[in-house]
Amino acid sequence: MADKIVIFDTTLRDGEQSPGASMTREEKLHIARQLERLKVDVIEAGFAASSNGDFEAVKAIAAVIRDSTVCSLARANDRDISRAAEALKGAASSRVHTFIATSALHMEKKLRMTPEQVYEQARLAVRFARNLTADVEFSPEDGYRSDPDFLCRVLEAVIDEGASTINIPDTVGYAVPELYGNFIRNLRERIPNSGKAIWSVHCHNDLGMAVANSLAGVMQGGARQIECTINGLGERAGNCSLEEVVMALKTRRDYFGFEVGIDARHIVPASRLVAQTTGFVVQPNKAVVGANAFAHASGIHQDGVLKARDTYEIMRAEDVGWSANKIVLGKLSGRNAFKQRLLELGITLESEAEVNAGFARFKELADRKSDIFDEDIIALVMDESVTAEHEHYRLLALSQRSEMGERPHAKVAFAAGDAELHGESDGNGPVDASLKAIESKLQTGAEMLLYSVNAITSGSTESQGEVTVRLQQGGRVVNGVGADPDIIVASAKAYLSALNKLQSKHERVAAQG
Amino acid sequence: MADKIVIFDTTLRDGEQSPGASMTREEKLHIARQLERLKVDVIEAGFAASSNGDFEAVKAIAAVIRDSTVCSLARANDRDISRAAEALKGAASSRVHTFIATSALHMEKKLRMTPEQVYEQARLAVRFARNLTADVEFSPEDGYRSDPDFLCRVLEAVIDEGASTINIPDTVGYAVPELYGNFIRNLRERIPNSGKAIWSVHCHNDLGMAVANSLAGVMQGGARQIECTINGLGERAGNCSLEEVVMALKTRRDYFGFEVGIDARHIVPASRLVAQTTGFVVQPNKAVVGANAFAHASGIHQDGVLKARDTYEIMRAEDVGWSANKIVLGKLSGRNAFKQRLLELGITLESEAEVNAGFARFKELADRKSDIFDEDIIALVMDESVTAEHEHYRLLALSQRSEMGERPHAKVAFAAGDAELHGESDGNGPVDASLKAIESKLQTGAEMLLYSVNAITSGSTESQGEVTVRLQQGGRVVNGVGADPDIIVASAKAYLSALNKLQSKHERVAAQG
Repeated sequence: MADKIVIFDTTLRDGEQSPGASMTREEKLHIARQLERLKVDVIEAGFAASSNGDFEAVKAIAAVIRDSTVCSLARANDRDISRAAEALKGAASSRVHTFIATSALHMEKKLRMTPEQVYEQARLAVRFARNLTADVEFSPEDGYRSDPDFLCRVLEAVIDEGASTINIPDTVGYAVPELYGNFIRNLRERIPNSGKAIWSVHCHNDLGMAVANSLAGVMQGGARQIECTINGLGERAGNCSLEEVVMALKTRRDYFGFEVGIDARHIVPASRLVAQTTGFVVQPNKAVVGANAFAHASGIHQDGVLKARDTYEIMRAEDVGWSANKIVLGKLSGRNAFKQRLLELGITLESEAEVNAGFARFKELADRKSDIFDEDIIALVMDESVTAEHEHYRLLALSQRSEMGERPHAKVAFAAGDAELHGESDGNGPVDASLKAIESKLQTGAEMLLYSVNAITSGSTESQGEVTVRLQQGGRVVNGVGADPDIIVASAKAYLSALNKLQSKHERVAAQG
Repeated sequence: MADKIVIFDTTLRDGEQSPGASMTREEKLHIARQLERLKVDVIEAGFAASSNGDFEAVKAIAAVIRDSTVCSLARANDRDISRAAEALKGAASSRVHTFIATSALHMEKKLRMTPEQVYEQARLAVRFARNLTADVEFSPEDGYRSDPDFLCRVLEAVIDEGASTINIPDTVGYAVPELYGNFIRNLRERIPNSGKAIWSVHCHNDLGMAVANSLAGVMQGGARQIECTINGLGERAGNCSLEEVVMALKTRRDYFGFEVGIDARHIVPASRLVAQTTGFVVQPNKAVVGANAFAHASGIHQDGVLKARDTYEIMRAEDVGWSANKIVLGKLSGRNAFKQRLLELGITLESEAEVNAGFARFKELADRKSDIFDEDIIALVMDESVTAEHEHYRLLALSQRSEMGERPHAKVAFAAGDAELHGESDGNGPVDASLKAIESKLQTGAEMLLYSVNAITSGSTESQGEVTVRLQQGGRVVNGVGADPDIIVASAKAYLSALNKLQSKHERVAAQG
């Protein structure tokens, strides 16, 4: 039987570290469930020691995920590792992933440690972790730019201490396939106990080669684990895309020859869920999950495709979870149909109260919008769970008007805790006026970094608008998302949702890239 | 001296073939000028025989571009090649790029020709082209999936006929680096006259490996031309990204060792121009040109980056044209300052009348928006040139109001040729109401495939909204773009702009992927 490639998804850890992609516990739970459905082997759920919020998220995910190993990142120190192990206690299968930088540049500039200190700390950290848990992964941060002699010493030592997975991050996305593959092969050949560990690749996409580098690490280097994220989410240009690397392994199995456990039919729903949760759009020409990735997904049939599909297509859209937008529910759908559709979409609401709240919003939406699509349901439930979690600010009423040649004007009423606030303002446009009406009462002074709107379902001007607002305040960046058939209302909701996130202060520690 | 890699940009041909990315002649001219500024070696300006519009666009580009070779695609027949040569007449340097499919699948299913017929047609086409022009490129479509023996025969014959560039397209994005590099090396080794041609790579990104495949074609295969597009635009998952492949060659020159003539400082402006023109957004985690590609470009400084920039960054943001949004112009800026800024942005308006019209709109905008950024100017001028070209429908007035709990209502007045039409409607949201108000008078029945809004400049809620509307009607797909501080007005403008494009019928012939 062919070797199996372990798919290690780090959407919830490295992906979440992208500026603006931070997620709530509920959002992370939704995504973790979708990753389990995808049959991801390992889910890196967070970095437990970085914040209480992250600790709680890892813990919650460990408690519900049964089919995937749940992993937490930890710096190479006892406190971080203890926190990770504690958060993972309830898991069916768990892993602690500890790391320390080994490149000269990172040791000197970031850690301000000598190589000898780093060597000792790596060894002791893995020893400590192995006393708490059986499955320990070690990453030498910026490994690909590290001195190979030093790296061999460190890696041999941590394998001796019991690290069972050795991951070689190309932290800055500097690798090219041939060199990266050889780099890993050389390490494996030189380290006497290398056969006791599974080797892993972790590539960033700064030069557009994360997928090819990962696969060279497997083919030339002998790695058997690939770290990746949905939509290639991650710091800077992001990580290796799960959907691309998995579909490369599957589509070119004739060449690669590996087993991969992923159930690809859940890829597109996973991509949508991550995009909707983070507000990070997927460009139309993104491989596998972009709207144009399959000609016929955007309603276009070219001559060649009509004559024979495989003239231009090497994958089938259905195999990665594309399906035509179906009208799934309408005004007359009952609570059971709604609950059933949630199940099919892989959304499990925590309590009956949440289902009821979701259903009430669904009915409200169905009154205003005749056809309810899957995307509408996802947006509605995401919105609901966010609102339920941090409900300090809540939109109560909004009215606005604009006329070419005059300045638009808006009135907004919203709850702030127990108080009800009323603001009004004019502005450059009705969105500007509405947000200024909110600001007139709050004066948060948050800086807007991004404002974008997407129609949740295409094919009709009756779509709901999904608005993402990215705010920055005091060094923190948050995204707020709001959905409504009225784009102005969706904007006000998104703005309040972002303010709610700023409200729920939780500081984080920067982790490896 | 190191070998030079020829950068062949096909944004205006293969890129434009993506569903919804079609561009007007003026838009193509703007982009061609930016490509010349980038110092692209060859600009594939279009497919002259596919439509009169494309012929005119190629001709217009050939007339103004002096520093890059201008190229037109042509099927392997005399009519196509004659049209291409005719359109290119005014060029300082020109190339005809002719192609025919050589894979068994494409020959049988798409062309319905025997290999012998294809062989003859390829040979005769190149002979015909060489009689018209000195610089002829030949592509065997779906070359990478073609039988190598047959391919060798065809390529040897076309080189004998005078083809000076031989391009090996991975039309369906099926290649992996090692195999693709070897495929090209084998062809070059087996074909006796292979040394008389420059070999070229043309990779699609369906499995996320277009950049790595292209570079393997260069390193292992011996190719010296790379075909690519800005933002990786192109059918399905798109083509090899110019910005990624160029920055890989530059950043890892230690490994690749090639010269590349591109002036990378114009990459980000080129990316923005293409994104704004086509309405194809660039995802934040896109390498080089995404908003998050450089940590500090999104206002975030991580601990490591602050301590030493190269701990996490392998390129400098400035080197690829990222700069802080600068307030470039305001209310008091004069016509000369406006014209000067256009020049610096690489926008050359065709006539003084266009400059005047642009300046009038600039003043109008400056009355409503205190800070005018580069992006505002680009949007304004793009909008202007589109409007000037196809001005059948034009927005005259719009008023709308919405209030939570009531149905939004809009009134719209617009010009349709010489007539002035007034429509009103309610809708799910104010955008829906406004577009329905337009539809109430026109009943085009066009189907909306995409609706999206981006703030043109971030950093303030006073941004202009840039709305992209993608409509489909009778098998044609067009994008309309509209910009205004009022998002509802921008939506109505975008809708009318899309209708204008549908109005200006120009049919196209499908070309190679």
